[in-house]
Amino acid sequence: MKTKLPYYAVIFTSTQTENIEGYSEMAEKMENLAKEQKGYIGIESARNTVGITVSYWKSLEAIKAWKANTEHLFAQQKGREQWYNSYNVRICKVEREYEFETD
Amino acid sequence: MKTKLPYYAVIFTSTQTENIEGYSEMAEKMENLAKEQKGYIGIESARNTVGITVSYWKSLEAIKAWKANTEHLFAQQKGREQWYNSYNVRICKVEREYEFETD
Repeated sequence: MKTKLPYYAVIFTSTQTENIEGYSEMAEKMENLAKEQKGYIGIESARNTVGITVSYWKSLEAIKAWKANTEHLFAQQKGREQWYNSYNVRICKVEREYEFETD
Repeated sequence: MKTKLPYYAVIFTSTQTENIEGYSEMAEKMENLAKEQKGYIGIESARNTVGITVSYWKSLEAIKAWKANTEHLFAQQKGREQWYNSYNVRICKVEREYEFETD
């Protein structure tokens, strides 16, 4: 994934509750839905003690529209009510990027 | 962790080789060393298929100095030679931040 700079990243970090019923289905659904949004570039996720999901977007407007998406709003509410103990959202401008890949 | 905006984030994503001998010791050493650097704010990591480490810094100068740190340069070289199949480094300006925490 090599995109023209600058673009934007949303760093979403979270800690979960013990009641994560329905979470993985919703996470998958939201990832698929995000991919259909205008201005979407990509998404990466990993979780151990803390979960980190970084999604990449072409503009702040695209991020704003995704945040306000009706199905996404419902998922956000479920997250606050059930799945997350805490989370942090950071909206970032990606200013530089470099890559390494083995042959 | 609530820091005055803007500050900077380094999003480091990677995939590993099968030969990760010495990796976790080095990762811990680098995390401890990062904490001692000027302008360091915090660090978060998770790894499944992909590993994501996000470190937070007060300035681009702090990131530049950390990148050029002698011990860190050695770790970066070891990473390219042995531990990583691929990695991507993104230098980002954190422009907005919001948090959720249960009571």
